Amino acid sequence: MAFDLTFDPRVEDWRARIAAFMAEVVIPREQAAFEHGVTDELRRDLQAAARQAGIWAPQAPAELGGGGFRFDEVAVLLEEAGTSLLGPLALNCSAPDEGNLHLLHLAAGPEQRERYLKPLAQGRIRSCFAMTEPPPGAGSDPSALATTARRDGERWIINGEKHLITGADGAAFAIVMARDGDGATMFLVDTDTPGWKQAGHARTIDSTTLGGHCRIVLEDVVVGADSVLGRAGEGFRYAQARLAPARLTHCMRWLGAARRAHGIALQRATRRELFGSGLADLGMAQQMIADNEIDLAASRALLWQTSWQLATGAKGTEESSRAKVFISEATARVVDRSVQLAGGMGTSEELVLGRIYADIRAFRIYDGSSETHRMSIAKRAARRVREATR
Amino acid sequence: MAFDLTFDPRVEDWRARIAAFMAEVVIPREQAAFEHGVTDELRRDLQAAARQAGIWAPQAPAELGGGGFRFDEVAVLLEEAGTSLLGPLALNCSAPDEGNLHLLHLAAGPEQRERYLKPLAQGRIRSCFAMTEPPPGAGSDPSALATTARRDGERWIINGEKHLITGADGAAFAIVMARDGDGATMFLVDTDTPGWKQAGHARTIDSTTLGGHCRIVLEDVVVGADSVLGRAGEGFRYAQARLAPARLTHCMRWLGAARRAHGIALQRATRRELFGSGLADLGMAQQMIADNEIDLAASRALLWQTSWQLATGAKGTEESSRAKVFISEATARVVDRSVQLAGGMGTSEELVLGRIYADIRAFRIYDGSSETHRMSIAKRAARRVREATR
Amino acid sequence: MAFDLTFDPRVEDWRARIAAFMAEVVIPREQAAFEHGVTDELRRDLQAAARQAGIWAPQAPAELGGGGFRFDEVAVLLEEAGTSLLGPLALNCSAPDEGNLHLLHLAAGPEQRERYLKPLAQGRIRSCFAMTEPPPGAGSDPSALATTARRDGERWIINGEKHLITGADGAAFAIVMARDGDGATMFLVDTDTPGWKQAGHARTIDSTTLGGHCRIVLEDVVVGADSVLGRAGEGFRYAQARLAPARLTHCMRWLGAARRAHGIALQRATRRELFGSGLADLGMAQQMIADNEIDLAASRALLWQTSWQLATGAKGTEESSRAKVFISEATARVVDRSVQLAGGMGTSEELVLGRIYADIRAFRIYDGSSETHRMSIAKRAARRVREATR
Amino acid sequence: MAFDLTFDPRVEDWRARIAAFMAEVVIPREQAAFEHGVTDELRRDLQAAARQAGIWAPQAPAELGGGGFRFDEVAVLLEEAGTSLLGPLALNCSAPDEGNLHLLHLAAGPEQRERYLKPLAQGRIRSCFAMTEPPPGAGSDPSALATTARRDGERWIINGEKHLITGADGAAFAIVMARDGDGATMFLVDTDTPGWKQAGHARTIDSTTLGGHCRIVLEDVVVGADSVLGRAGEGFRYAQARLAPARLTHCMRWLGAARRAHGIALQRATRRELFGSGLADLGMAQQMIADNEIDLAASRALLWQTSWQLATGAKGTEESSRAKVFISEATARVVDRSVQLAGGMGTSEELVLGRIYADIRAFRIYDGSSETHRMSIAKRAARRVREATR
Repeated sequence: MAFDLTFDPRVEDWRARIAAFMAEVVIPREQAAFEHGVTDELRRDLQAAARQAGIWAPQAPAELGGGGFRFDEVAVLLEEAGTSLLGPLALNCSAPDEGNLHLLHLAAGPEQRERYLKPLAQGRIRSCFAMTEPPPGAGSDPSALATTARRDGERWIINGEKHLITGADGAAFAIVMARDGDGATMFLVDTDTPGWKQAGHARTIDSTTLGGHCRIVLEDVVVGADSVLGRAGEGFRYAQARLAPARLTHCMRWLGAARRAHGIALQRATRRELFGSGLADLGMAQQMIADNEIDLAASRALLWQTSWQLATGAKGTEESSRAKVFISEATARVVDRSVQLAGGMGTSEELVLGRIYADIRAFRIYDGSSETHRMSIAKRAARRVREATR
Repeated sequence: MAFDLTFDPRVEDWRARIAAFMAEVVIPREQAAFEHGVTDELRRDLQAAARQAGIWAPQAPAELGGGGFRFDEVAVLLEEAGTSLLGPLALNCSAPDEGNLHLLHLAAGPEQRERYLKPLAQGRIRSCFAMTEPPPGAGSDPSALATTARRDGERWIINGEKHLITGADGAAFAIVMARDGDGATMFLVDTDTPGWKQAGHARTIDSTTLGGHCRIVLEDVVVGADSVLGRAGEGFRYAQARLAPARLTHCMRWLGAARRAHGIALQRATRRELFGSGLADLGMAQQMIADNEIDLAASRALLWQTSWQLATGAKGTEESSRAKVFISEATARVVDRSVQLAGGMGTSEELVLGRIYADIRAFRIYDGSSETHRMSIAKRAARRVREATR
Repeated sequence: MAFDLTFDPRVEDWRARIAAFMAEVVIPREQAAFEHGVTDELRRDLQAAARQAGIWAPQAPAELGGGGFRFDEVAVLLEEAGTSLLGPLALNCSAPDEGNLHLLHLAAGPEQRERYLKPLAQGRIRSCFAMTEPPPGAGSDPSALATTARRDGERWIINGEKHLITGADGAAFAIVMARDGDGATMFLVDTDTPGWKQAGHARTIDSTTLGGHCRIVLEDVVVGADSVLGRAGEGFRYAQARLAPARLTHCMRWLGAARRAHGIALQRATRRELFGSGLADLGMAQQMIADNEIDLAASRALLWQTSWQLATGAKGTEESSRAKVFISEATARVVDRSVQLAGGMGTSEELVLGRIYADIRAFRIYDGSSETHRMSIAKRAARRVREATR
Repeated sequence: MAFDLTFDPRVEDWRARIAAFMAEVVIPREQAAFEHGVTDELRRDLQAAARQAGIWAPQAPAELGGGGFRFDEVAVLLEEAGTSLLGPLALNCSAPDEGNLHLLHLAAGPEQRERYLKPLAQGRIRSCFAMTEPPPGAGSDPSALATTARRDGERWIINGEKHLITGADGAAFAIVMARDGDGATMFLVDTDTPGWKQAGHARTIDSTTLGGHCRIVLEDVVVGADSVLGRAGEGFRYAQARLAPARLTHCMRWLGAARRAHGIALQRATRRELFGSGLADLGMAQQMIADNEIDLAASRALLWQTSWQLATGAKGTEESSRAKVFISEATARVVDRSVQLAGGMGTSEELVLGRIYADIRAFRIYDGSSETHRMSIAKRAARRVREATR
């Protein structure tokens, strides 16, 4: 037998119900959210409705109340959830909670599962992932990690500064990455621990992320040994284990957003008249429409293949790097063309396109910038050649 | 003698003083403006300072109190003013007032000059240009103009709907384009005229335009014969006369903004360390830096040449179309690369880059979208060939 | 069950043997072929060796002596064959014979199978596909077909002019498309039939196509009723049936060629020193290397998915259009970057890259230009929206 | 006074006469040259005709029999000469002779002028510039120069290997760059000197360069002290003096070729019907046509400005780097689009487009690859910032 790219009927069932949920529940609440901000109240409302609709957390393990889908199936469902900027939040599959949930599922001990993972999976609390630091600390180059964790008997004392910590405002706990001698360790830190200070939001142009992108100061934050996630010294390894799939779930969600943008622009183009013919029939509009269709198809094919590789056991560092660069850039092109196709109102929130355009921009930067991934891809390619020709 | 691209010393003197003014007066006020919005109070403050600094309205005729520079010299000065998103407002050379001033200078009668042009040139009032209509009205295709002006004895009665009217909120008057039989006529309409209704701002992602982008309803707006700008029936011709130079002043200002973005990113790149070397010394960063330098240089060369063509008598429809497409796309690339180069904070207002990125997007759409200009350029090229080979 | 993208072991076995054959048999003969031209003698030599190696015609049905692989498996094998510009010829899976074989297998009657299909499948004869005409005839727009077939009792008389008929010089027969009343009919025409005139080769920049790209004049070519391929009047339908898979086999082969180009450039880059470091470690080289890796991966993912769709019953017109545009452009980018990466010798035949660069150019034009496919994709997208929102 | 971009009437006069000469004398001989190769006999014929037409060597000083134009005027005239791939040869302004002539004029002593410069300027002999070496020697990085010149009393003994030496086959003399202790020295070497061996042509895809791109072996080549060009040890400085203007004359000529390509495609597009309308009226064709017009205009504007800078005293290293990258890439885009627009015959020599497409490819590589120039541009930009903020 050769390939098989058929969906399981259960995947199609969930996909259709997520699509209906977006249309009926989520999209009607977008404009108010754009105008007045995304609030925790809105999150709770939407999440209750999603649970009701039987589409809760498609990516989460069944034993945690999620859909229990395999990662290549998740690709189909998170794309659908991504068609509204509020969709992933509603289904509890948004960053950073989705990635944290995944990591906790891999690495947390029994008590940590009870205390952090379960309520997170149920949407009772939110979390954040505190790795990135202001320059010259950890950013594109994680090895520059500057936050320190000093062991003091049974306790650890954490000091440092983090920035661009997505979702930190309102999070119940953080996964904090800190340098511990030569290695790095991850800690589960309640945000009401003394010494944890939220020092303001970055004023970035995206606006639909609940909890913002915060600057955090950690000043003599004292945590117990039970706060170590997994094992001490394994921080970089856990970061890798979180990053490859997290990159791809970003791709899934943004692919949905890009498809939405294309759909809005296309619908508008089929209705408008310009220079005496339908806008969608003008050659330059056709070029934008076709390029969108092509970029979406190529992104989806690469995403499905890569997700299948991870689902069937590949570590997928290189594969997910390639997919992340391609899809973050292809979806950006799709959204940009959609804005252009929509004309004067293309940059508006009313048409949604303006919001997607602003919010998607950082995707080429976070979770490894395009340049960082390209460097890593090229190094691996060169290494393979050098090893083969030695 | 061959070419001469030397600046006149007076141009260089103004340029240097505008640069100093940006650094000392305008840029220090940017962050507050980004955070709390651009207000008329801020405008008055900055304009008073600019007048004080002797750099008022470089593009305006000397008899109106402006710099009286030739259009190719204006290119140098408006680029400098554009290095802050607030700069053009400060120097009274921002859209739409700058274009309106130009048009009024061309077409207004003596009384209109006293009543509208002079206070506009002095920054005592603001204005707007009410041409664009919601689909299926006038947009990329001006001939679809749907707003009507019906003559009734000595009066005109205007009805219609306009949208995306930049600066309308707070404007003292509007230049309204309306269909009058077969042709089109421009009217000077005070915004307190009964029937003129501002029906809300479009929620677009740009945020530094004073007066927003408004929807205007004109319901039986009655104006006198003295409100006709220039001559009745000449509306399309006046629109053309306004558009070619207005396209280029947009290019001048946005070229300044793109240069600023590049400067911010470059400065940051020279200070950051990454993967053990300076960020600005990494090959992929060098590529972005070099591409910015190249795009800025090519844009400036084309802009200067085109401005010179208009300054020396060319109508410049085709030349300005080419320049508009190239420069709007090249500056967008520059800003996008600058955001990317700056990394995590690249989309923030704090670094200014996020603001420029969002605000520049619509430039590829307004004043003729890239597609509309390309269509027009290609038609002219084909016509030339057909005529030559007939 | 979710997706499955695992190869069958028989696919991997053939793939590995084709790879070895390329390295040991085909590639060693490339330089002579580039320098002195591809001859029928070379073809016979290589084909004998391929048959010997047990890798004959992977795409052909088993009953015709071919590999009998499913179309998605063919994707894997034809990519491998494409790694040398001579590989497809050696394995009897090159254009136009491969597409003709496919079409004959679909549509030929028993006698036609004996007379044309069998010897073609065995490599005893070559063929050509005579559809394209000089303007204003059939090209991007097949409906402009100008060649006529007039029925005269039991005979047909064909008149017309074809151009860019690949492989015509030396072909034993042609599939000729001709207008027959309102519809079109395909004829099997022996090239020694009176009235068939080969009127010269187009001097195009590619050089590895055996039989060239010929201009053919058909002057009162008389054929019998037994020359009609399939049924009269079905020409356009057969053309479609040939085109969708033929587009994809082109993609498969050129993907192999692009991979080869990348491999050559990469190997060279890992060995060269420049500015005191390895060329492959310079950032701008890394960018080209990574972009190649990404474009190859995205092309392959999309190609496999599309081939699977055709293999499992989809007509695939739209899917294959998308894949053709994407892959023809992505492989062109890969080859262009490889040339650039290789530096001064990048445009040479000695490094093979120059040859691939020149030979791949027409792929964005033939079998539907990028623009023709984009138009068709956009029309279908718009139609879907219109139907959904009716 | 502001800018002035008016041509001197003498420039316009030469331009018009060159254009006529191209149409009447040069273009009619193209097809034979493409088919049978460019020969020295063809060169002599064309050069005699050019001298007759009073358009000899526009760039050469008047005292050497040339046009004596300033460098910014040369930009206008060499673009015109470039409209045929044979034009620069006909007017004696082709590479490498044009650059060598320029360098000899700067640096040659009185006897060298008599012996080399004068006959070169008169077209009586040809020359080559022997700098580039096979890896790991001098290429993108001139400091890797490996060829040595050892002083032995009054003589120098040169040993080394050069490759891709354009025009070497048939050249009367070469300017050879060799390492001499720490520095580099340029030598004027007659190609009949014992030890100078032409070891074959690179089989590159371009085909209109007279004398090919040769591999040269220098084995104990003995030259006298009078063979040193200018002063010993100044080789790198002379190379720079040659390179900046030589880069720009390449830009001028290739701009002409790109304009020609666009003209051919445009003319064809205005005549063809496709899908029921004129090809030139289809939106995607319009996009290619407009993008060509824009790229040509931006290239010309940047080229004129840069040429003016060099003409008025700027060293122009950075400016010419920017122009070279932009114009080599923009003209490549123009030619690629022209091929695409022309469809099936777009890659043919018959339409000239195929020839230009193949021949222009190396322009992004030689005289400093795009990557080398970008690196240099970025380094200078970073250095400026570092110095300004110190």
